[in-house]
Amino acid sequence: MIDLSKIESPADIKGMTVEELTELAKELRKTLLTKLSAHGGHAGPNLGFLEATIALHYVFDAPVDKIVFDVSHQTYVHKMLTGRMQAFTDPAHYNDVSGFTNPKESDYDLFTIGHTSTAVSLAGGLAKARDLVGGTERVVAVVGDGSLSGGEAFEGLDFGSTLASNFIVVVNDNDMSIAENHGGLYADLRLLRNTNGEGEPNFFRTLGYDYRYVKYGNDMKSLIEAFEEVKDSRYPVVVHVNTQKGMGYAPAEAHREEFHFSAPFDIPTGMPLHVSEDPEWSDIFYDTMQPLMSQNSSTVVITAGTPGVIGFTPERRRKAGKQFIDVGIAEQEGVALASGLAKGGARPVFGVMSSFIQRAYDQMSQDVAINATPVVLAIFGAGMGCLNDVTHLGWFDIALISNIPGWIYLAPTCKEEYQAMLRWAVRQTDYPVAVRQPGPEVWETGREFPEEYFDINKFSLCRKGEKVAVIAAGATFKAAYEAVGQLFDEGITPTLINPVFLSGIDTGMLEELKKEHRYVITLEDGVLDGGFGEKIARYYGDSTMKVICRGIPKEFLDRYDAGKLQEQCRLTSGCIADDIRSLYSPE
Amino acid sequence: MIDLSKIESPADIKGMTVEELTELAKELRKTLLTKLSAHGGHAGPNLGFLEATIALHYVFDAPVDKIVFDVSHQTYVHKMLTGRMQAFTDPAHYNDVSGFTNPKESDYDLFTIGHTSTAVSLAGGLAKARDLVGGTERVVAVVGDGSLSGGEAFEGLDFGSTLASNFIVVVNDNDMSIAENHGGLYADLRLLRNTNGEGEPNFFRTLGYDYRYVKYGNDMKSLIEAFEEVKDSRYPVVVHVNTQKGMGYAPAEAHREEFHFSAPFDIPTGMPLHVSEDPEWSDIFYDTMQPLMSQNSSTVVITAGTPGVIGFTPERRRKAGKQFIDVGIAEQEGVALASGLAKGGARPVFGVMSSFIQRAYDQMSQDVAINATPVVLAIFGAGMGCLNDVTHLGWFDIALISNIPGWIYLAPTCKEEYQAMLRWAVRQTDYPVAVRQPGPEVWETGREFPEEYFDINKFSLCRKGEKVAVIAAGATFKAAYEAVGQLFDEGITPTLINPVFLSGIDTGMLEELKKEHRYVITLEDGVLDGGFGEKIARYYGDSTMKVICRGIPKEFLDRYDAGKLQEQCRLTSGCIADDIRSLYSPE
Repeated sequence: MIDLSKIESPADIKGMTVEELTELAKELRKTLLTKLSAHGGHAGPNLGFLEATIALHYVFDAPVDKIVFDVSHQTYVHKMLTGRMQAFTDPAHYNDVSGFTNPKESDYDLFTIGHTSTAVSLAGGLAKARDLVGGTERVVAVVGDGSLSGGEAFEGLDFGSTLASNFIVVVNDNDMSIAENHGGLYADLRLLRNTNGEGEPNFFRTLGYDYRYVKYGNDMKSLIEAFEEVKDSRYPVVVHVNTQKGMGYAPAEAHREEFHFSAPFDIPTGMPLHVSEDPEWSDIFYDTMQPLMSQNSSTVVITAGTPGVIGFTPERRRKAGKQFIDVGIAEQEGVALASGLAKGGARPVFGVMSSFIQRAYDQMSQDVAINATPVVLAIFGAGMGCLNDVTHLGWFDIALISNIPGWIYLAPTCKEEYQAMLRWAVRQTDYPVAVRQPGPEVWETGREFPEEYFDINKFSLCRKGEKVAVIAAGATFKAAYEAVGQLFDEGITPTLINPVFLSGIDTGMLEELKKEHRYVITLEDGVLDGGFGEKIARYYGDSTMKVICRGIPKEFLDRYDAGKLQEQCRLTSGCIADDIRSLYSPE
Repeated sequence: MIDLSKIESPADIKGMTVEELTELAKELRKTLLTKLSAHGGHAGPNLGFLEATIALHYVFDAPVDKIVFDVSHQTYVHKMLTGRMQAFTDPAHYNDVSGFTNPKESDYDLFTIGHTSTAVSLAGGLAKARDLVGGTERVVAVVGDGSLSGGEAFEGLDFGSTLASNFIVVVNDNDMSIAENHGGLYADLRLLRNTNGEGEPNFFRTLGYDYRYVKYGNDMKSLIEAFEEVKDSRYPVVVHVNTQKGMGYAPAEAHREEFHFSAPFDIPTGMPLHVSEDPEWSDIFYDTMQPLMSQNSSTVVITAGTPGVIGFTPERRRKAGKQFIDVGIAEQEGVALASGLAKGGARPVFGVMSSFIQRAYDQMSQDVAINATPVVLAIFGAGMGCLNDVTHLGWFDIALISNIPGWIYLAPTCKEEYQAMLRWAVRQTDYPVAVRQPGPEVWETGREFPEEYFDINKFSLCRKGEKVAVIAAGATFKAAYEAVGQLFDEGITPTLINPVFLSGIDTGMLEELKKEHRYVITLEDGVLDGGFGEKIARYYGDSTMKVICRGIPKEFLDRYDAGKLQEQCRLTSGCIADDIRSLYSPE
């Protein structure tokens, strides 16, 4: 048995035999599985790329040689081998490391990466820099088959092959994206796997790469041989490694989509340890869309590789049939395809994470807004408290979407309003409309909403008061509603407004407010800079109305605590009440 | 001789023989050349795709069949054949049509398109919509070889091949992007051209397309045969058409880069009719970068397919050697590669149009900002008065870039400040820095600037006055400077501030202004929503300072008049002076 605590850097595995390395793999897998089962994480990708990670560190000399991992959600083993073993062996230290590469943790980590399809481009830059400064280190990009559907990966491969120097792209092909792959490319990858890499045509060769296939991508000897072979290549080369997602853990091998990312689970059965009874936005979205799809066979839901996020389980996808499209991890295609669909008379709804819609700004602007195609975006994971890794923050979307002319960005405050807005967005054909998930929790109010938002930029006056008006957008509304309720009980009577729209302001209502109000407080679950509140501040700029904008500061926060951040941003009901109270105090 | 005025729709060419169509091509070419020489335009692309356009309209039945043109800068002949002939035959009507497809002009134009790499995605949406609603029309995407370098085109191809129905992608391969092509893909296209389409590997086949090669892409008979053959294909097919850019006009065939887009020229010689003596930003950028590249061999300039825009003529590119990179039309790669380069110790400067940097928001955020890699962006074509097509507006970049945490966005006001900022940006390695071209005209002030901007968000106080402070960013500064000069002569003494930074505010100075000022006017050459002025309005929101923000309204304007727009936005020196004067009037 190998003492994992003795492995402090890749140097500690360099002297091992293939048998010892294989034994090491067994130990690491056991340890990894224990952490995964207790802590959750990207199970499938890490189990599948475990042997290859050992082989990479055995053959290459990181951190002198540079290894860039795409998405970097498969780097747990890399972290174990590069000085961070304790974060995997000792439960008290499980949270010492992030789930992605992180230069703040280690020199072996070159970039903080969390979005897909970037590694080839980044590694290409490292290789080109090396060539300019006359370095001799090797440069390796590791990219999964799923990531190859993203346009940035293609652009990176297209450039990378023009390097006349060492540039090694390891394609970790487990025949899966997060869910199953979609797209013409994947037939070619299948052909290559089925022909032991010898079939034609070969996608990588068309782009100018030398090519090496590894049939047994979880076999240490095969991997080491392949990496040794290309290690000192003086030309760009692709090593196509056929791996098994979830390798070595039967439930993860059998349920590859569920175990791509998993919450804590029971090792013997693979069943989740905790089953939440709480309603989830993914199901609400599905439950809202399903009848619309049944009623109109041209209503079509699109995902860019994350069907689970939007509630489309494998069974529901089968049921939706050709009314469900997975374009692969390709958000640009998600948006542009939707524009073509809308122009062609279909009703496309692209469900996408806030953090990932960033990848399609130009498409939202050019392909959709300029053409006024009635595309619907359902934005998931928006605001505070959804994903909290720095690479997956959900609070830049307001500034991004609402400042594009022509887009209507709706901010529902509760489940019922979310559904009404989504139904209206699908029904109408006048505008591109985005609907923002109001935070992580589902607030069920039982209220009825009219499913009618043609009165663009019309705010909703919820409670009429005087002196102070609170304009609380989306997820912030619940706390504001509670705060205002509390204050009315105290005899303090602020006005409460649900702005409904993030993409414009209700100048009529804002003018009206001037009569009996001296202060407006804006609340939003997004970054203040470029956000909703600033529109109000600008509107009132030359008046005597005082405006206080509350939202998230312009910063990249990593693994923030949502509760604390809400306090800091003064978006809790307590903070909101205090802020309002202070404005009613004698001055 | 064919009477072009009789051609009102494609129906009018359906009965023609191949010989007549060839004669028609001759007439159209002559007419087109006459307009191009007098009016300017995309000469090369239109001359090269002339026969293919006729053949497409001969074989397919638009507008029932749907043809989507990528970039759509090659659609002059399409317009001539679809009811807009007069805009090409009659100089008085030359401006009746835009330079791109435009649904407002004709039902034959499906989308307003101006950015590259989108047509396959949009057409894929049309095809999928057809399949959902049970239509039978044919769907054709026309895409140039240069556009294939863009990731969106790859994503579109990857999805498109999964359609089990009619989907025809015409690849117009003239062996050129705007300048020469770069990237591994182009070796494969060359192989296919050199083998009459028979070589392996074949890029399009790897993505699952049937494939048909047309060797003589300017020969009517070959084109018609090929299009007839695939017309009713029930599977996705690529027709790879080998065309000659600038076909039929010797100077355009010889000088393909210059004639991609040309100003008015003399037909016999091909020489430009007007040679401007005015300084241009492209040359200023080159003149600034060239010494920096000489001094440091790891300083590297990047373009995404538009070397001419940034002053890198073929000769200068040769001189720059490996310190110049053209990644193809692939802005995502431009930014991500730059991040890798910066991380590897090189000093990358990516020169890119305001309208095109939109294509790389996620890369600016994830690949650069989160990693704090000291990438330099030089933003061209920013503000009013540069390109004025709706697809190429240069005024969304402030909201886009300056609201990403970590980016320093600098707004020079004149040539000398631009150079100082660019030199500092390249010299420092602490921040990602973008430098914004200050409008179309070059203002030479002869002033010296310290080449030192480490004091982040420090505004520059240019003229100290009282009551009203004008904060004039970038290109707006000159008019403000003139206005304030005029007002001082009149005895009115506003304060004038150059904010220097677009990405943050100088809270110290803003606080200080409260003492002797009651009004702040912000001026910016960008959209107000999400822009610079709103940050100032928010800052002063809860104070008695009144803030008036001037900038561009959130709208897509097509072929606007820059002078009129400047008036409307009250950004001329006259408007600025009037606005200030009115604030000094007795109230």
